[in-house]
Amino acid sequence: MSRYARKVSTTPAFKRLPRAVREQQMLDAAVRVFSRRGYHGASMDEIAEEAGISKPMVYAYLGTKEELFVACLHREGTRMMEAIAGAAAPDLPADERLWRGLRAFFGFVGAHRDGWAVLYRQARGEQPFAGELAVMRARLVEVVAGMLDHALRAERREVAETELEVVAYALVGATESLADWLADRPEADPEKTATRMMNAAWLGAGQLLRGVTWRPPSEQGRAPS
Amino acid sequence: MSRYARKVSTTPAFKRLPRAVREQQMLDAAVRVFSRRGYHGASMDEIAEEAGISKPMVYAYLGTKEELFVACLHREGTRMMEAIAGAAAPDLPADERLWRGLRAFFGFVGAHRDGWAVLYRQARGEQPFAGELAVMRARLVEVVAGMLDHALRAERREVAETELEVVAYALVGATESLADWLADRPEADPEKTATRMMNAAWLGAGQLLRGVTWRPPSEQGRAPS
Repeated sequence: MSRYARKVSTTPAFKRLPRAVREQQMLDAAVRVFSRRGYHGASMDEIAEEAGISKPMVYAYLGTKEELFVACLHREGTRMMEAIAGAAAPDLPADERLWRGLRAFFGFVGAHRDGWAVLYRQARGEQPFAGELAVMRARLVEVVAGMLDHALRAERREVAETELEVVAYALVGATESLADWLADRPEADPEKTATRMMNAAWLGAGQLLRGVTWRPPSEQGRAPS
Repeated sequence: MSRYARKVSTTPAFKRLPRAVREQQMLDAAVRVFSRRGYHGASMDEIAEEAGISKPMVYAYLGTKEELFVACLHREGTRMMEAIAGAAAPDLPADERLWRGLRAFFGFVGAHRDGWAVLYRQARGEQPFAGELAVMRARLVEVVAGMLDHALRAERREVAETELEVVAYALVGATESLADWLADRPEADPEKTATRMMNAAWLGAGQLLRGVTWRPPSEQGRAPS
C-alpha cells in the first residue's frame, strides 16, 4: 500500500531478517529525531547519528527524508491499528466494543504522546503525508462503520450507508480531537479520557447534560440505559 | 490578534476605507488562487494578476505570501465565527442552540467548499498556519463549552470544567471531521449534514442504534426525549 511496504517486499529473502531489524532501528531513531525537531527541522545527519549508521546507509535502506517520514507514519499508524484491532471482540455488545477500541486507542496515544504530536499533526496538512493519513483515517472510519453496522444487524435494523458513514466520521473526528487534547496534557489519564469520549459518543450531549453517564461493564453489571 | 488585524489598525484614518476595500479585493483574489493551486503552488504573480493590481502593491498591502495566507485564513475564520455567532440565541434551549450553530457552520462550509478544502486542510499541519487554526479552534471550543455550561446552570447542575472541555473538544472534532466529509461531496446537503451531526452529538451512538432520532423543533413540537 505505501511506498515503504512496497520497498520491503522487493528485498531478497535471504537478507530479510537483518534488513527488517536494521530498518526498525532506523525507524526508531527517525521517530525520535522527528519528534524532537519536527519534519522540516530534522536532518538525515542527525537521524543517521541517532541510529548509529552512516547516512548513505539510511538513504539506501529507507530513501529520502520524505520517504523516511512516510515510513515512520506508516509504522506508527499500523501499530495504532493493531492496538485497536487487538482490543476488539466481535461477539461483545456494541458499547463494550466501542469502549475497548477507545481505551486501546487512547492508551496508544498516551504512550506515544511525542510521536502523536509530531507525526500526526505534521502529516495532517502536508502532501504527500496527508494522503497517508487520509488512508489510515478512512480505514478507521470503515472499522467504526462496520462495528455500528454489525450492532444494527444484531437488532435486525438497517440504516442507510451514508448515515453510518456520517456517524463513523463524527466518532473518528471526535476521537482525533481528544487525542490532540491528551497529547498536549502529560498529566491527563488515557483511560479516563477514553471513558469521557465513550460518554460523549455513546450517550450524546443531551443525556450528559441530564447527568446520565456510561460506565464500563466491568464497573457495573451493564451500561445504564 | 493576528498579524493581519494588527496591520489594519496601524492604517491612518483618512485612508482606511479605500485600503480596506482594496485589501478585501486582494484577499478575495488570494483565496481563489490558493484554492486553485494550494499554498505551495500559488504565486504572488498570479494573485496580483487575479486581483488586477501590481505585485509590489500586494506586498505593500498584505506582506509576503505567508502573511497573505494567514490573512486569508483569518478572514475566512472570522466569517465562519460570525456565521455561527449570528445563529446563536442565548435564551433558547441547549439543543436548539447547538442545532442552529451546526446549521450555520455546515451552511458556511457548504458555501465555501473550495476555501475550506484548501485553507483549513493546508493550515492544519503547517506552521505558522497551524497556530492560527489552533486559536480559532480554541475559540470554538470555548463557545461550545460555554453553551453547555449555560445549559447546565439553567438546570442548576454543575460539571467539572475538564468534563465540559472534553465534550466540547469531542463536538468540535466531530464537526470538523464532517466538514471535511461535506467539502469532499459537492452533492451533499449542508442542512442534512447538520441534522446528522446533531443526531450523533445530541443523542449519541447508543440512542441512534436504537432508532431514536432528533428533529429540529420547527419540524415537530419538541425534540423527542
